[in-house]
Amino acid sequence: MLQFTFLGTSSGAPSLTRNVSGLAVRHSKSKDWILIDAGEGTQHQIQRAKLSLQHLQAICITHVHGDHCYGLMGLLASAGMNGRKEQLTIIAPKNIQLWFEATQQLTDLHLPYPLEFIDVNTLQQAIQINESIQLSAIALHHRVESYAFAIEVIQQQKKLNVDALNALSIPKGKLWGDLQQGKDVEYDGKLLMSNQYVEIQQHRVKAIIGGDNDQPELLSSACQDADVLIHESTYTQATLDKVGTAPMHSSAKMVAEFAEQVQLPNLVLTHFSARYHDHEGLNMLKNEAQQFYSGQLFLAEDLASYEFNADHVLVKI
Amino acid sequence: MLQFTFLGTSSGAPSLTRNVSGLAVRHSKSKDWILIDAGEGTQHQIQRAKLSLQHLQAICITHVHGDHCYGLMGLLASAGMNGRKEQLTIIAPKNIQLWFEATQQLTDLHLPYPLEFIDVNTLQQAIQINESIQLSAIALHHRVESYAFAIEVIQQQKKLNVDALNALSIPKGKLWGDLQQGKDVEYDGKLLMSNQYVEIQQHRVKAIIGGDNDQPELLSSACQDADVLIHESTYTQATLDKVGTAPMHSSAKMVAEFAEQVQLPNLVLTHFSARYHDHEGLNMLKNEAQQFYSGQLFLAEDLASYEFNADHVLVKI
Repeated sequence: MLQFTFLGTSSGAPSLTRNVSGLAVRHSKSKDWILIDAGEGTQHQIQRAKLSLQHLQAICITHVHGDHCYGLMGLLASAGMNGRKEQLTIIAPKNIQLWFEATQQLTDLHLPYPLEFIDVNTLQQAIQINESIQLSAIALHHRVESYAFAIEVIQQQKKLNVDALNALSIPKGKLWGDLQQGKDVEYDGKLLMSNQYVEIQQHRVKAIIGGDNDQPELLSSACQDADVLIHESTYTQATLDKVGTAPMHSSAKMVAEFAEQVQLPNLVLTHFSARYHDHEGLNMLKNEAQQFYSGQLFLAEDLASYEFNADHVLVKI
Repeated sequence: MLQFTFLGTSSGAPSLTRNVSGLAVRHSKSKDWILIDAGEGTQHQIQRAKLSLQHLQAICITHVHGDHCYGLMGLLASAGMNGRKEQLTIIAPKNIQLWFEATQQLTDLHLPYPLEFIDVNTLQQAIQINESIQLSAIALHHRVESYAFAIEVIQQQKKLNVDALNALSIPKGKLWGDLQQGKDVEYDGKLLMSNQYVEIQQHRVKAIIGGDNDQPELLSSACQDADVLIHESTYTQATLDKVGTAPMHSSAKMVAEFAEQVQLPNLVLTHFSARYHDHEGLNMLKNEAQQFYSGQLFLAEDLASYEFNADHVLVKI
């Protein structure tokens, strides 16, 4: 099932409880995963989350600000020291490639595996990252070129036809389990074919993961059929009004109003200014969002994981 | 007194218990401090060690490898976000300045305070970093240009002339304390002048802090009058023999033999390969060093502090 593990949820600078941006996305049936943003310390959080740099397939960088990319070079270097040989794809603004090339030259960085850079600006059409994950990008509005990533997976679920089995008085337990796992079984002299009692249901799950952005409405079209939006909520509206619009961030209110308007079933807020990292501050953000949004709301926590379960419900695991 | 707080003691990549290189150096009577190396995550360790980026006076980078400098850009950015206005000095190989300039341009980095870059290659003569700290650099031998820093401080200590006070039957307690603190006091109708009973003793303390290096003997001259050498000890000799000389690191044996030869009173080993981060591995390094070195030996730990006390002895605090 589609899983999100937050590696960092602070805006700008890390605090003692929250690192700067990083988000691991994977399908729970595979060890492969992708990383959205790599603020400084992301490789440390990857170790804590027990994720493997060997199974990292792609790194997507939403924009070039340091709190979203200054962990990239160390992560690439460590993957090399861990013995990685397979190509790694980096989907990012063009400057990230230029910064990698400058860093490589100036800091004597040698990677024992190839990188493939894809300019995020060319990613209007979805590309297939691996068997289960499709990815495309949507332009946002920030102090620099910034993007959201749309991730789509097909979740398959095997559903046993319980009514049919009960009608035949097939006892629960091992027989049901074997049928569910695709094995044909014998009962009372009859051969029961798994594919006759198991239906494969497919759900498409779509997640929109935003970079820094002060115009959530730019995601209107992408969010029409989305199951969850993960978006920055740097300030409360009161703070944003004080700070002014120059930083070009969103308030909890702005994102919540947008999510309500497009009828999103799930909203995960992240990228909180350090002033909100205590219990009281987080409650302020949560209360503000709940005033304007009636769907399921989460405030992301570092190293917490969230998953779409078999019933298509987003749960914290 | 001269104090060292280790922010990272791992070579190459961080582990769950040890970050990559970073070392805070300060005189305990001042809040000002200097940083030697800034591997990724150094700003996180600075928070944990309760050091302030506002009082950071200089950053010295021993060499350009990522595990010694990939935390620099995030640290500079965070100091700006914390409101720093005062100039910060960076003493480093020339490439660090070029890397900063490229990073600044490519990642939209704006610092609200000036940087002064000093090419470490020009630092044969000592410069005064602040009232108490003098610093110079010594070239080492590694895969890239690498340096050690020599740090000298004058430790002052006020010593009460206890014999004289006892001879006059001046009672211990507040009177002695006031005299020690420079106050003149009255006793039994007589005025006792502090400067007659307090002697100011001065000790010069010299520390040599190495970058990556496979020829400890390059520090022979600098270590002649040094009180402590802090040096990488990436491997045991057995591992170095297996790995070969290409990484251009030192073994515990190499550093210990050198320290013994130049009669160093204190040796602190650091920069340990992750294979030694468990108890057993650290013991292997320690035992090897103790075989060849008879002075006081420490294996550095993350967030541990060491200080030259009033008796000129290096102690873990």
